[in-house]
Amino acid sequence: MTAAGLENVHVIPTANHPLVYADWLHAGFDKPTVLIYGHYDVQPVEPFELWETPPFEPTLKDDYVYARGSADDKGQAYIHVKAVEAYLSTDGRLPVNVKFIVEGEEECGGASLTAFIAANAEMLAADVALISDSHMLTPQLPALVYGLRGMSYLYVDITGAAHDLHSGGYGGGVNNPINVISHIIAKLKDEDGRILIPGFYDDVRPLAAEERALLAELPIDDATILQETGAPALWGEPEYTIVERLGARPTLDVNGIIGGYTGPGAKTVLPASVHAKISMRLVPNQDPDTITHLFTRYVQSITPSSVSVTITPEHSAYPWLADYNHPAIKAVKLAYGKVFEQEPVFLRGGGSIPVVSDFQTHLGITSALMGFGLPDDRLHAPNERFYLPNFYRGIETSIHFMRLYAG
Amino acid sequence: MTAAGLENVHVIPTANHPLVYADWLHAGFDKPTVLIYGHYDVQPVEPFELWETPPFEPTLKDDYVYARGSADDKGQAYIHVKAVEAYLSTDGRLPVNVKFIVEGEEECGGASLTAFIAANAEMLAADVALISDSHMLTPQLPALVYGLRGMSYLYVDITGAAHDLHSGGYGGGVNNPINVISHIIAKLKDEDGRILIPGFYDDVRPLAAEERALLAELPIDDATILQETGAPALWGEPEYTIVERLGARPTLDVNGIIGGYTGPGAKTVLPASVHAKISMRLVPNQDPDTITHLFTRYVQSITPSSVSVTITPEHSAYPWLADYNHPAIKAVKLAYGKVFEQEPVFLRGGGSIPVVSDFQTHLGITSALMGFGLPDDRLHAPNERFYLPNFYRGIETSIHFMRLYAG
Repeated sequence: MTAAGLENVHVIPTANHPLVYADWLHAGFDKPTVLIYGHYDVQPVEPFELWETPPFEPTLKDDYVYARGSADDKGQAYIHVKAVEAYLSTDGRLPVNVKFIVEGEEECGGASLTAFIAANAEMLAADVALISDSHMLTPQLPALVYGLRGMSYLYVDITGAAHDLHSGGYGGGVNNPINVISHIIAKLKDEDGRILIPGFYDDVRPLAAEERALLAELPIDDATILQETGAPALWGEPEYTIVERLGARPTLDVNGIIGGYTGPGAKTVLPASVHAKISMRLVPNQDPDTITHLFTRYVQSITPSSVSVTITPEHSAYPWLADYNHPAIKAVKLAYGKVFEQEPVFLRGGGSIPVVSDFQTHLGITSALMGFGLPDDRLHAPNERFYLPNFYRGIETSIHFMRLYAG
Repeated sequence: MTAAGLENVHVIPTANHPLVYADWLHAGFDKPTVLIYGHYDVQPVEPFELWETPPFEPTLKDDYVYARGSADDKGQAYIHVKAVEAYLSTDGRLPVNVKFIVEGEEECGGASLTAFIAANAEMLAADVALISDSHMLTPQLPALVYGLRGMSYLYVDITGAAHDLHSGGYGGGVNNPINVISHIIAKLKDEDGRILIPGFYDDVRPLAAEERALLAELPIDDATILQETGAPALWGEPEYTIVERLGARPTLDVNGIIGGYTGPGAKTVLPASVHAKISMRLVPNQDPDTITHLFTRYVQSITPSSVSVTITPEHSAYPWLADYNHPAIKAVKLAYGKVFEQEPVFLRGGGSIPVVSDFQTHLGITSALMGFGLPDDRLHAPNERFYLPNFYRGIETSIHFMRLYAG
């Protein structure tokens, strides 16, 4: 950042992972200020053995750079540093004021940044936040994300006997935590994808007909998603399209489960415990705290007395919908059009970027989500990669954005 | 074994783990021949971190020896070697002919021994098999196991997408193998313990009123099992007693499950696959091959087309019931009575000792199960142990058995 010409570059300690701040504030008081956000932390790399190149040694192959964090989000955050560098090394100045804030806890709840934003609203004051942590539909078709799903992520731990038992000696007389959690998970979501937690849908704002029509214009259909995922068939709430199910409907997934004997071969154990990580994606106007409470109360109510259950909320995030008439969002739209020769489609993202709610709540600003990833970047999975032509076009788009937003 | 005075001691190679054979055949043709069976293999030691002493360094503490295999089955098999040694070093001869066969695959299906028995019926010919691989009810109350449950053990692997996906990007549109297997497991056994696989109970011989009365005399009740297991409450088919549920009723347990992200912290992954180990305990006259077939057909029929399933049978065993008027079983009863000053109760064991079916089928002999373990030996679990007073009394009981059975 210093080499790019940014100023006040410094690392800000927090209770957990530090923040990185930088700015360039010489555009003038009449020019808008853009708060550029990114994150340097990444998802765990497991299963490590499925990586074809070392996850933390960026490897160039064909038109891609392969590395954990290449697309989510180091590569995308770096785009804006290079855009600033290009502007300053040619014009000597930026058309807008710029502040960078880069955090290290996006993948685990971002508690430090939330606290920092709440306590430092003046330092971070801006007219809009600009975030590149989302993806385009194809290398030719940019996408402007105007909504994001929220999140409630919990750990569920079930314990039966005080220690592992011989399944021959006690099977049939002592309950098995894995069988129990299977019944619980089956009661959380039916086989068509409808969530069964009482009250779960109460605050879901129905999709208006005009928004369903807008989403229907997206060039995404079942074949697209089948190709991206390699799944044998798609699946989900039958009364919604695939685009709606992926972005505009809440859902529930078990992200991980482990219990009993999982090594090679057979072990006839009646396990003492099982551990699951379960997350729910939320949509407006669901409140993650309310959902966490409903989940906890329901799971407690359906857990039999022959085992004990512990439910631990891990992190949560509010769902979000932007005002897409904001001047910065219009500038993003035009900038994409300049570089990709095609204006972006508007869509609602299925993931969570909790910081957008923090920016809205504590700074009173909306966020413009200008992503350069691609659907097959393998985010959170082995062999994550970033498409290099999008890195270079991203820099161009960022430059056009600053110019257009300056007016 | 050689030091104890046994003869023809040798290791017999097999396709997998070798067998150990020894004999002493000088009692005379008019005396019965006892085939003493044991196994030197053990269950995996995981979870390793819960062991308070190293699992493969026998540790003496109070009246116990702590080690993997101390009770199941090295310590119990060793009893008979020491009994032979005591007899030969005092009387100079045994009252019966003795053959030892010790295998190394009991915990993983025993395929090598089964093949060896089938091919070497003459070498192993005997009047009865004597097996110490079961437990007494209390240190004062021996138990004579006259029935054992059978087994069908399978792996179930479910795969959805071609690779792990971001649960935000694809949750709600691509099915989640962990959610799917939870529905499948919930459909295998209801919450009261009744197995839901069509045809599963067709061949179960109903418990006769007189056998239920015999089993009701056992001094085992809910409080016993609660204390042994530390479970918050017992559980199972409400129309059967705890003794019946643990020994005389079939059941189904998930022995292990793993899928998705199971490391520390949160990962918002929609996993590509999940893996479960599932076993069913069987009772007369269920056929393990039939049960494996019914399980496979049923699970295939309830797996949705949005994932694929692979079912791999791992091993199986027939259930078994002995003729308890056999002279050797009467000798076991009297020998127990001499040493423990209390004759044994008769019960049906919940576990499997597949070799008893092999002895019945290929050698035409019944087995006398004379166990010296205790219910809190933690078989298959961390901190397995063997109660030393039972080791010494076991040697005495084995000596009395040989004398009494010789007549």
